Amino acid sequence: MRKSNLFLPVLKENPKEAEIISHRLMLRAGMIRQQSAGIYSWLPIGLKVLNKINDIIRQEQNRAGANEILMPTIQSADLWRESGRYEDYGKEMLRIEDRHERDMLFGPTNEEMVTDIFRGYVKSYKDLPLNLYHIQWKFRDEVRPRFGVMRSREFLMKDGYSFDVDADSARNSYRRMFVSYLRTFKRLGLQAIPMAADTGPIGGDLSHEFIILARTGESEVFTDKRILDLPTPPSDVDYSEDLSQWVDQWTAYHAVTDEIYEEAAFHENVEEEQRLQERGIEVGHIFYFGTKYSEPMGAKVAGPDGKEVPVHMGSYGIGPSRLAAALIEANHDDDGMIWPTIVAPFEAGVICLNIKDDDARQKSTEIYETLLGQNIDVLLDDTSERPGGKFAAMDLIGVPYQIIIGPKGLAKGEVEVKIRKTGEKIILAPDEVVNFVADKIQQDLQLI
Amino acid sequence: MRKSNLFLPVLKENPKEAEIISHRLMLRAGMIRQQSAGIYSWLPIGLKVLNKINDIIRQEQNRAGANEILMPTIQSADLWRESGRYEDYGKEMLRIEDRHERDMLFGPTNEEMVTDIFRGYVKSYKDLPLNLYHIQWKFRDEVRPRFGVMRSREFLMKDGYSFDVDADSARNSYRRMFVSYLRTFKRLGLQAIPMAADTGPIGGDLSHEFIILARTGESEVFTDKRILDLPTPPSDVDYSEDLSQWVDQWTAYHAVTDEIYEEAAFHENVEEEQRLQERGIEVGHIFYFGTKYSEPMGAKVAGPDGKEVPVHMGSYGIGPSRLAAALIEANHDDDGMIWPTIVAPFEAGVICLNIKDDDARQKSTEIYETLLGQNIDVLLDDTSERPGGKFAAMDLIGVPYQIIIGPKGLAKGEVEVKIRKTGEKIILAPDEVVNFVADKIQQDLQLI
Repeated sequence: MRKSNLFLPVLKENPKEAEIISHRLMLRAGMIRQQSAGIYSWLPIGLKVLNKINDIIRQEQNRAGANEILMPTIQSADLWRESGRYEDYGKEMLRIEDRHERDMLFGPTNEEMVTDIFRGYVKSYKDLPLNLYHIQWKFRDEVRPRFGVMRSREFLMKDGYSFDVDADSARNSYRRMFVSYLRTFKRLGLQAIPMAADTGPIGGDLSHEFIILARTGESEVFTDKRILDLPTPPSDVDYSEDLSQWVDQWTAYHAVTDEIYEEAAFHENVEEEQRLQERGIEVGHIFYFGTKYSEPMGAKVAGPDGKEVPVHMGSYGIGPSRLAAALIEANHDDDGMIWPTIVAPFEAGVICLNIKDDDARQKSTEIYETLLGQNIDVLLDDTSERPGGKFAAMDLIGVPYQIIIGPKGLAKGEVEVKIRKTGEKIILAPDEVVNFVADKIQQDLQLI
Repeated sequence: MRKSNLFLPVLKENPKEAEIISHRLMLRAGMIRQQSAGIYSWLPIGLKVLNKINDIIRQEQNRAGANEILMPTIQSADLWRESGRYEDYGKEMLRIEDRHERDMLFGPTNEEMVTDIFRGYVKSYKDLPLNLYHIQWKFRDEVRPRFGVMRSREFLMKDGYSFDVDADSARNSYRRMFVSYLRTFKRLGLQAIPMAADTGPIGGDLSHEFIILARTGESEVFTDKRILDLPTPPSDVDYSEDLSQWVDQWTAYHAVTDEIYEEAAFHENVEEEQRLQERGIEVGHIFYFGTKYSEPMGAKVAGPDGKEVPVHMGSYGIGPSRLAAALIEANHDDDGMIWPTIVAPFEAGVICLNIKDDDARQKSTEIYETLLGQNIDVLLDDTSERPGGKFAAMDLIGVPYQIIIGPKGLAKGEVEVKIRKTGEKIILAPDEVVNFVADKIQQDLQLI
């Protein structure tokens, strides 16, 4: 994309209302705009990052055998009366009356609705296991929304739901999502640690939070360091096989958030040199809750013996909008964001230092178009801004590979590549630069 | 995708509640499920079609220089008070009170919010023209929602907004969207006719509806036949040039809906042999409304002379969820849907007639995987259903190219390809079939 055609409203000043670094940087870089308390618009580069995060989640959900659907945002209160949660949910639920005075609500989660879909179609254990997920906007009317898209009222969530004929099979479905989540976060360049968790309003007796380490995280975590060295399940992991070994390996070490932290247990379970106390951000949460919804809502299948049984369910959430912020908390410096290539708003940038210089403009355009031709997502700074402003903007929005082209360098047969993450600068001949950058990007995007 | 892994709840019986063919077929083929009056879930193949429609819209919006953003669904009533539309909008607007008793609403359209985004950042004519669009769920509380996703309450809309320093430049922006819409519908395989239209609650003095012809359409249209033979602007049409010739050409012929039809005018403007009276479905609507929102909301820029002027705006809507239904109204037969390849839920299908036969299963799998390797979106029917059911399902969901593989054919060195649109059946050797189908698909997907 040409910067002259891109709506990229970078702010000169640091926005005062932002308490945390990701919120500050997202506002400054023109990624998001607040529309009301806890409600945001996603501007072009913010939306690009969000969509790239969604794509990784989707790929790993599909790989694990889940089916993507899309449920609506507005739900009937009657469904929630069936499960008994309509009264329970409290003020976080945005309740709505339609023109015919029917009670509706903006979905904060979809256990009820997906159970309704299931009971409408599936009648036999032969159609199980089944896992349905969607990536849809949710609303939770937080008393005090804050931290930008980290804790907003309207937020994007990937929520998935598994259906199985019995508890054993449901635990297999749970393990598939456990493994899928490990892969998802790893591919996003994040170190996520699964931790045993409370089940809260979703209910159930088995649950893990996935927490990523970030100095600026909202909660404190206490973990065994060795968990950081565990291998991630590979892309060809067989989801039809027993995945217990992966789950057992990742849950063998002590890892808890401050909510359930007890010093004595931490000290007993983790030797001193292995203890790690860090801050973390919750980016995923998975639950097994058996027949909590299927029983009251009558979601039953005929089992192998012909008898009807309520299905065993689990639910699995990842917040892509929150992940965008969490990724920034985990990857930034004083100059701005440092995106992993796989979710960067652009994989590469070309900075033409002087757009009025024919050579510089032509060479920049040529390199830009060659990169585009190789399906690289590249931003050409073709504006008449001064070099300092161009450098600052590329660093602020966190473009991983920046190709800098100016009349002086060209006269010497040189262009510069700056690597955002390390700050390293490499001098290359103009005809070497495309391959150099394309190779780097290909390495970064390699499927793990 | 393997059908054994796909959630495809095909109904045996025709759903009684559906009044029109697209609604009936979408329910029967497991594309959508009604959750409340006028509110639908999109099941896997429905969502796939919807996303493919979105992709074409997005490509043509970006080609025309528009920037994609994503505004939230929930808006503050205060914004709508600024424009004066909060009271005007009536009962179609879904009004909501949040926990702090602030008036909110589920956006039925976004003129106010996008004007707020604009005024927050853009201060100079030098940053114009600007066109911002998003593809987001909207809510209009219809008294009597019906016809499935054709007239639903929660619906998907691509709504775009242009900003210009003066009326002349705004008309250029309008023309760019006019051309972009012609291309979008053509690429979707639809014959769309732009017709002069009323502006309704959006306001303004220039507006066109885009109507596609479909025997089962909701309104009657009266048009000059010659409009059907007009050329579509090509993919390399230069959006920075004057596009008047395209707009003039497409608006030169008489074409009106029954809302403003007058027999005398029709007869005067169109010779008898050129008159066409057909049914049609509105799939797009574009407006130029000048300073209707920018004036009251203070969205101003400094002009070339340094003086502040309110920006001239237009808005441009396409309904992707409605388009999914309209495409079915325009393309179906007694056996089901006949998708244009570009939006088909799968581009190709492989039917293994007997999954228990080793040869048939192996050959089917091999052909399926080869097609996948060529990035073809293919469905393998690997279930143990009977052949008749497999044929019926492939036809019902409208897979354009169906490869049929059975033990008897293989023994003779033959497989069959069925072309959904024509019903044509072609006998080929197994090693010819991939190239044959891949070529057909490539032709269908060729950029026009």
